[in-house]
Amino acid sequence: MLTQLEGMSDTFVIVGGDAAGMSAASKAKREDPEMDVIVFEKGEWVSYAACGMPYYIKGEVGDLNDLVAVTPDEFREERNVDLRMGHEVVGIDPEAETVTVEGGGETFEQPYDRLLVATGASAIEPPFDGLDLDGVFTIHDMDEADAIEDFVTERSPDTAAIVGGGYVGIEMAEALSEHGVDVHLYEMLPHVLQPFGDAVAEVVEEHLREQGVHLHLDTAVSGFEGEGPVESVALEDESHPAEIAIVGVGVAPNADLAAEAGIELGETGAVATDEYGRTNYENVYAAGDCAEVRHVVTGEPDHVPLALTANRAGRAIGQTVAGDPEPVGEIAGTAIVKAFDLGAARTGIVDEEQAREAGFDPVSVSISAPTRAHYYPGGAELTVTLVADRGSGELLGGTVVGREGAKRIDTVATALTAGTTVAELRNADLAYAPPFSPVWDPILTAAKVLEGKLDHR
Amino acid sequence: MLTQLEGMSDTFVIVGGDAAGMSAASKAKREDPEMDVIVFEKGEWVSYAACGMPYYIKGEVGDLNDLVAVTPDEFREERNVDLRMGHEVVGIDPEAETVTVEGGGETFEQPYDRLLVATGASAIEPPFDGLDLDGVFTIHDMDEADAIEDFVTERSPDTAAIVGGGYVGIEMAEALSEHGVDVHLYEMLPHVLQPFGDAVAEVVEEHLREQGVHLHLDTAVSGFEGEGPVESVALEDESHPAEIAIVGVGVAPNADLAAEAGIELGETGAVATDEYGRTNYENVYAAGDCAEVRHVVTGEPDHVPLALTANRAGRAIGQTVAGDPEPVGEIAGTAIVKAFDLGAARTGIVDEEQAREAGFDPVSVSISAPTRAHYYPGGAELTVTLVADRGSGELLGGTVVGREGAKRIDTVATALTAGTTVAELRNADLAYAPPFSPVWDPILTAAKVLEGKLDHR
Repeated sequence: MLTQLEGMSDTFVIVGGDAAGMSAASKAKREDPEMDVIVFEKGEWVSYAACGMPYYIKGEVGDLNDLVAVTPDEFREERNVDLRMGHEVVGIDPEAETVTVEGGGETFEQPYDRLLVATGASAIEPPFDGLDLDGVFTIHDMDEADAIEDFVTERSPDTAAIVGGGYVGIEMAEALSEHGVDVHLYEMLPHVLQPFGDAVAEVVEEHLREQGVHLHLDTAVSGFEGEGPVESVALEDESHPAEIAIVGVGVAPNADLAAEAGIELGETGAVATDEYGRTNYENVYAAGDCAEVRHVVTGEPDHVPLALTANRAGRAIGQTVAGDPEPVGEIAGTAIVKAFDLGAARTGIVDEEQAREAGFDPVSVSISAPTRAHYYPGGAELTVTLVADRGSGELLGGTVVGREGAKRIDTVATALTAGTTVAELRNADLAYAPPFSPVWDPILTAAKVLEGKLDHR
Repeated sequence: MLTQLEGMSDTFVIVGGDAAGMSAASKAKREDPEMDVIVFEKGEWVSYAACGMPYYIKGEVGDLNDLVAVTPDEFREERNVDLRMGHEVVGIDPEAETVTVEGGGETFEQPYDRLLVATGASAIEPPFDGLDLDGVFTIHDMDEADAIEDFVTERSPDTAAIVGGGYVGIEMAEALSEHGVDVHLYEMLPHVLQPFGDAVAEVVEEHLREQGVHLHLDTAVSGFEGEGPVESVALEDESHPAEIAIVGVGVAPNADLAAEAGIELGETGAVATDEYGRTNYENVYAAGDCAEVRHVVTGEPDHVPLALTANRAGRAIGQTVAGDPEPVGEIAGTAIVKAFDLGAARTGIVDEEQAREAGFDPVSVSISAPTRAHYYPGGAELTVTLVADRGSGELLGGTVVGREGAKRIDTVATALTAGTTVAELRNADLAYAPPFSPVWDPILTAAKVLEGKLDHR
């Protein structure tokens, strides 16, 4: 059945009810309470913290509902958002300015004045055999997190195969180890956390091994085997026992809906947008894990699906459609991850090859320095890497890793956002007192060493 | 006896062997090994961390020598610095380019090609009665720290009077409480930590009271009383028992030596310098706690005697005299202090009156936000205050206080150094993962709220 709803002026339709979508809905309604804001969410969860799922599985978060920032009732009753759960947008007609929706037992068309595509991203499913075996999981939505937690508590697996050494793999290694599972982590590349660079990876790998995680680097997985539930993970020449398997090899933007409607995608495969999050159609916006955002260092579109980017862009678009245009902001690709007792973080361009592709002549240094005064108890060693352009001295990116102080990456991210040089960062007046830092914060020490390397070229 | 030493070319003479002096000496020697670098230090300690003294007294640092960053022998043998301990410079003749030195049983003149005045600062001694009683201390050098530690362990005082609610007072309250001393802290002003503003002070005061410190705000001390050792502290109308007293009411630059030589002082009473740390005499530099430095927000000379400023300026001057001119850098007045379980930090211009005097139209907000995702265990509430100029949106300063995350002030300090606006800071791509931050870091939340207040003017 196709129902034509009454067309209204100032109708803002949002496809997808997570970070970007709900931020946009809330902001638009707050700025313009007269606007009709309709959110179609195909699933049963809105505004949830996917990043918190490993900690639910680990047992540090008692209830999956704790990961929900704002409940559907709060959106409806306090924020006056017309939120339709279990409603899937199956088509967009940007010329007619309507979307086709399936939900509530019917199919209907919904006109819009402004549309936001916030369809998120999905876990990549590699072409593995046995992906559908019982006990094989990706982890990209709340139902899956729930299923993993159930499986672990009910079946008490002895051994786990985690495929992929990115955030998800490392966080799940920690979560499953907490349950006494013997964890094997398989990574195709020579190092885990590839976007963090080798200096971070080496520290993290040593720590993972100390924590009893079996690392299999440079190791390709071809699939899973088992009669009924998963029993083993298949490698090139052998197979290892595995009573649970987690596949975390990255995410891809959910951009098909947009592409089918003639909305342009960028080179990354995510929806191309301008500085206000607009697509090639003036009244169609895209934000969050399905959309590109401009990188603050390269000035080029990039796809870095992370929560802050989604929240920020959604909020900006909500403000824009309410009549007060606001850029979605640029990203630096800043990320931080906990690996057992370590924190590891990155921002900007860390990879020298990537820097060269972007037209820079990269120079980098890695230093290790204590997080507190050398005589003050309880500090840790922080390894800091900074990368700069040789010609201009411009800061391009950096990483940090250590048992405390990983949030110091924010200093580097702030410097990148402001476009500072290494010399300027080295002269930043950062906070010192013995319980918090050495006189020269490790970031300043790294900048000082990098500056010396730039000078003596 | 007045001995005229042989004059040499390229002689760099430094008055004072702590942070600024020894940084300059080391850097100059590293850049130009042929240079003669002579440091005259009147005391028996060099290159020591005065900021660590409260933690020695508290008992967290086992040996006073642990506070020494580099020993005299290391300076002499590894860095080839001609370090003369127990030598006091009693006069400077900037026209003749010589200093008069007393030490080693003689008085002599030492010619210089370049001179660095790094005479530091001294604890202010208010006009109190009984300052010389046994058990009354200021805390501004290593011998005094040693004496306090001896006094506390040998006499086991029951009650302490701490005069002054600045860093020293608060750190000493923590140190003495650790020894079971009942601590009374007296502050003339309505709040402790005046340079941190009221929002920080209120959080710190509540915490100090929770920790059993008796706060006497708006309370002037007139002196100390006792027959032999100190027995009580005298207020306007009454006196309180005190078996030990610490006076920490601030420091003043040691600028008399410079002033008597015709070296110009600035309005702050510290030695006036240019961007390279040069005084009104071309070959005479000044750095550290005795010298002014330019403030990054106001562009005006200021006197903020802190360790990083001294280290940085000393290092820059060492490089400059070695032939590679390097600015000493600007300061933001960034500071951080531990108050029992709290960290409190500040940067830039926080006081609205001070902002108006500098020509700004200040707008400020204070927010409280968690340091980790709301569902992640172990976080703390961080109170963030940001101040901006209404007309330009330029960020002027900020403070943070909480049980964790006080180093987040570095984000604000870095933004100040780069001269960013509130809107730019709000769009900084800071690091998020549940164990480290909410999606919007508290600094970003504060920037977002402040931006809203600026918009709706």
